[in-house]
Amino acid sequence: MAQRRAMAKAITLLESTRADHRALGDELLTALLPHTGQSFRLGISGVPGVGKSTFIESLGLYLIGLGHRVAVLTIDPSSTVSGGSILGDKTRMEHLSVHERAYIRPSPSSGTLGGVAEKTREAMLVCEAAGYDVVIVETVGVGQSETAVANMTDMFVLLQLPNAGDDLQAIKKGVMELADLVVINKADLDPDAATRARAQITSSLRLLGLHGHPEHAHHDESIWHPQVIQISALHKQGVDHFWDAVTQFRGLQTANGHLAARRQGQARAWMWERIEAGLKQRFRDHPAVRAQLDAVTQAVLAGTLPASTAARQLLELFD
Amino acid sequence: MAQRRAMAKAITLLESTRADHRALGDELLTALLPHTGQSFRLGISGVPGVGKSTFIESLGLYLIGLGHRVAVLTIDPSSTVSGGSILGDKTRMEHLSVHERAYIRPSPSSGTLGGVAEKTREAMLVCEAAGYDVVIVETVGVGQSETAVANMTDMFVLLQLPNAGDDLQAIKKGVMELADLVVINKADLDPDAATRARAQITSSLRLLGLHGHPEHAHHDESIWHPQVIQISALHKQGVDHFWDAVTQFRGLQTANGHLAARRQGQARAWMWERIEAGLKQRFRDHPAVRAQLDAVTQAVLAGTLPASTAARQLLELFD
Repeated sequence: MAQRRAMAKAITLLESTRADHRALGDELLTALLPHTGQSFRLGISGVPGVGKSTFIESLGLYLIGLGHRVAVLTIDPSSTVSGGSILGDKTRMEHLSVHERAYIRPSPSSGTLGGVAEKTREAMLVCEAAGYDVVIVETVGVGQSETAVANMTDMFVLLQLPNAGDDLQAIKKGVMELADLVVINKADLDPDAATRARAQITSSLRLLGLHGHPEHAHHDESIWHPQVIQISALHKQGVDHFWDAVTQFRGLQTANGHLAARRQGQARAWMWERIEAGLKQRFRDHPAVRAQLDAVTQAVLAGTLPASTAARQLLELFD
Repeated sequence: MAQRRAMAKAITLLESTRADHRALGDELLTALLPHTGQSFRLGISGVPGVGKSTFIESLGLYLIGLGHRVAVLTIDPSSTVSGGSILGDKTRMEHLSVHERAYIRPSPSSGTLGGVAEKTREAMLVCEAAGYDVVIVETVGVGQSETAVANMTDMFVLLQLPNAGDDLQAIKKGVMELADLVVINKADLDPDAATRARAQITSSLRLLGLHGHPEHAHHDESIWHPQVIQISALHKQGVDHFWDAVTQFRGLQTANGHLAARRQGQARAWMWERIEAGLKQRFRDHPAVRAQLDAVTQAVLAGTLPASTAARQLLELFD
C-alpha cells in the first residue's frame, strides 16, 4: 500500500500545472525512465455497452492469475468537462480495483485531450517503474481519444458487439484502421451474427488496405495482420483466447522489430505534438495575435480574406 | 489566350517564394477572392493505371459540351523531388489540354506537401476568378496527398479497378474514408468482379461508419451517404452516369448546408495548418533550438529523456 500511495502521489505531482511541480515532475520522470518500458502497453476501446469494464476486470484478474501485475488507466475526455470521470472506474471493476496486484487510475479530469493524453503517458511510465508489467489504457471513444490511446500503446484493440451489417454499432471514421485486433465480445448472444460480423470486418480490414504498406499486400508471416476474434463466455472462448492473440502479436512485433520502431515513432511524435501544442499556445497568447485573431478568423470564414494570407498576416504579428 | 497567359502569370507569381512576390501575391489573392467560390471543386484520386487521365479527359470534354469551363490542377508530391511533374499533364490529356474552355496546370514542382497544397489552393482561386466553374484537383496518391486534395475540394472521388477481394489494388490507410464517391472504372473489363467489388466496398463503407455521425446512422435522405458506382464505356455508363452522381451530391450538400460548412471548415483548417507550419519552421530555425534539437531527439529515441520533458526543454530555448 505504501507503493500505491507513492504512485498516486507521483501521478498527482505530474498532473499538477504549477511550474515548480512541473519541474519536479520532469526530474522524477527522467529518474524513472530507465526503469520503464518493460511492460506491454495495451489500448482498449469500444462504445459504452460493449462490455469493456467487465472484459477488463476479467482480463486483469486472469493476468494476475498468470503472475502479472496490471495497471488500468483511462482516457475519458468527457471527464474534463464534468470535472470527474463519469465512469466511476473503481466501482466498475470491483474485484480488480481492490486487488493488491492491480492499480486503477481514472482519467485526469482537466485539460485538453493532448494534455490528458500527456498525463496518461506519464502515469503509464510511473506504473511501469513500479513494476506493473501490463498497462491497459482504456478509452470510451469520445473525440479523438482512440487515436491518442493507439499512439501511446503497443497494441490497439477494438471491442465490438456481434450485431452485423447495418445494425453494427457505428464506428467513428478512422477508428477501425487503428485496430491491431478487433474482438467481437459476447459472441454467444448471437453466434450467427457474430460469425457474419467477423467475416464482414475481416473483409473490410483487407479491403481498406489495413494490412500495412502495399509491399506487404501479400501475406507475410513475419508481419502482423489485423485479426478479428470472437470471445464468448458460453463457448469458453474468453480472455484466454484473447490473451493468446495478444501474445502472438507481441511475439511477432518483437521479433520483426515493429514494436521497438512503434515506440520510437510514438516518442518522436509525442515530442513534436507537445512542441506544436506549446507553440500554438504561445501564438494564441501573444498580445498582438490575440488582438487580431478573431477578426482575421471571421474574415477568413466570411470569404473576404484568403486563409493563407491570413496565416501570413498573423505570423507577422508573432515576434 | 490573353486570359490564359494572365492566369499562368498570376499562378507563377503565387508560386514564387520571393518576399516581394509573396506580398504582391497576397494582394492579388485578396482582390480575386470576391470572384471565387462559384465553381464546383472536385477531387479525384486513384493509383497509376486506374485510368485517371483518360477519365478526366473524357469528363472535361463532356462538361465543356454541357457549357462548363474546366480547370484541372494536379498535386503530385513526387514532382517536388524530380523537379517536374512526372505525369506530363499536357500530353496525358491531349484533347482537353488544347481546348479553349479548359485550363490544365501541373503540380507545383517544389516545396513540402503543405506548400504544394497551398499553391494549388491558390491556383484554384485564380481559376475560379477567371470563370472556370468546375475545378478538378487530381492526385496520384503519394504520401498524404489524398488528404490534401480532400481538404480543398467539395467532393472527393476515388477511382478503382474492378478487381475484387484480395486482388483489389492496395488502398492506403485512411483514403477510403475520405471518399464521397467510389468509382469502379473500366467495369466492362470484368463485370462480375466489378459487381463484387461494388458490393464489398459498399459494405465496408457502411461498416466503417463512413456515413457520418452516429446520429446519422439510420438512413437520412437529406444527408449524402458515400456511394459506389460502376462506369463502363461498353455499357454506356460513362461520365454522364458519374456526373449524375456528382450533381446529386452537389444538390444535397448545398440544400443541407454541408457544402458551405465544409468550405468554412476547410478555410479555418487551412489557416491553422499554415500557421502551424510557420511556427514549426521558426522553431526549427531558432539558433538555440537548432543547436540542441538533434541531441534531444536522440535522447528521446534512446529512451533516456521523456518526450514531454524534451518538448518542454526545447520550448524553453525558443524565445
